[in-house]
Amino acid sequence: MARFFMAGTNLAGGTVIIRGRDAEHVKVLRLKPGEDVVICDGQGTDYKCRLVMADKEQAQAEVVEVVPCPAEPSVKVTVLCGLPKGDKTEYIIQKCVEAGAHEILFFQSRRCVARPDAPEKKLERWQRISEEAAKQSGRGIIPKVDWIGEFADALNLAIQKDLGLFLYETGERESLNAVLDSNRHIETLALITGPEGGFAPFEADLARITGLHICSMGERILRCETAPVVALTAAMYATGNLG
Amino acid sequence: MARFFMAGTNLAGGTVIIRGRDAEHVKVLRLKPGEDVVICDGQGTDYKCRLVMADKEQAQAEVVEVVPCPAEPSVKVTVLCGLPKGDKTEYIIQKCVEAGAHEILFFQSRRCVARPDAPEKKLERWQRISEEAAKQSGRGIIPKVDWIGEFADALNLAIQKDLGLFLYETGERESLNAVLDSNRHIETLALITGPEGGFAPFEADLARITGLHICSMGERILRCETAPVVALTAAMYATGNLG
Repeated sequence: MARFFMAGTNLAGGTVIIRGRDAEHVKVLRLKPGEDVVICDGQGTDYKCRLVMADKEQAQAEVVEVVPCPAEPSVKVTVLCGLPKGDKTEYIIQKCVEAGAHEILFFQSRRCVARPDAPEKKLERWQRISEEAAKQSGRGIIPKVDWIGEFADALNLAIQKDLGLFLYETGERESLNAVLDSNRHIETLALITGPEGGFAPFEADLARITGLHICSMGERILRCETAPVVALTAAMYATGNLG
Repeated sequence: MARFFMAGTNLAGGTVIIRGRDAEHVKVLRLKPGEDVVICDGQGTDYKCRLVMADKEQAQAEVVEVVPCPAEPSVKVTVLCGLPKGDKTEYIIQKCVEAGAHEILFFQSRRCVARPDAPEKKLERWQRISEEAAKQSGRGIIPKVDWIGEFADALNLAIQKDLGLFLYETGERESLNAVLDSNRHIETLALITGPEGGFAPFEADLARITGLHICSMGERILRCETAPVVALTAAMYATGNLG
């Protein structure tokens, strides 16, 4: 069923006015009065609607049912990644949105090879990738994508969640399986993964001191763009959000 | 630590002779006598060795310890994918090798858009991607990548495993969470995922009749190249192979 986020849409008294890009989209899809569409408010609520009118400039639909978007997981996962090189960032955004992330935040850490002068410039593009992936996968929100600055900012955000996991490749670690199995009823979760070169030992030490769980995902070494997707999927599985 | 698969390597009586491409690799890495390397037989066994000699043509190492490769999961997962378009195939291979697949097999189903005349021609390239990903992620085998032909061949392979899951987007399905949670001690598993357009209803019916579990991964619609990685990761998590 065709799915729209609220942009260009106006909701009042059981009738929805669809304008702008969304109205064009209705036209492109050749949707006719009588057909059903879902309009999502981007806050996790779906408005199931029936089209009553559609012309070049706008479309109108009546609200049939208001439901929580079934695709939104019960746990809000903040994915925090050391900024990787090139298009890996876009890959992480697309796959993490599909896999159910609540927000995806990038930061700079000691071994980041990518050192963009102004990652802020990329924000618009990153957010558009999130929006496209959210539409395609039927999400009820458009996950926020942001640049948060330094490693310490990532730690600071992570310790405010119900559970904060720091994925690390060596040394003394807990098993991701064990930690998630013991925390199946969390509402918020932070996952921190590193850039291509991984984290420096002092960064792992800092994470440990702040109270994050230093976790292993097993002996297979995952690429920096694979690790967040695997960790996020494990979290979805552990919390019963994978079917 | 530097890691080699057995190609060009000869193992006899506690001493390893490294030849060919692997010997060149030793040279490129500037490894010196006294340094440790791991030589993997590609069957899941690691030979921890110490270099005793290295010159242009070959290197010699003495075996210090023989251990099962710790990166190999306890469950052998066969990933079966409806052939997607373009470079999605390569993406699936790389990510599934990292995530722990035992083998990755492609087949043709009704809605496959990609209809290569001779997928056999691509096998060499596919296998090389698997080998590179296996080395990079520290695997103990080079997962086999193959073209197996028709949808029915995929079903036939899947029903021979301890558990066979058919990931499908609509209709009556079991939860992936529930099915995997009830099958944590399997030794072999098959995961079948579809091409871009998903499976035709008759294909899902056939899968059900053959005894496969028709499974949902939740309400989020995953791209055809994301679904196998997510399903595989869930299986790794459920069977205790994720740290």
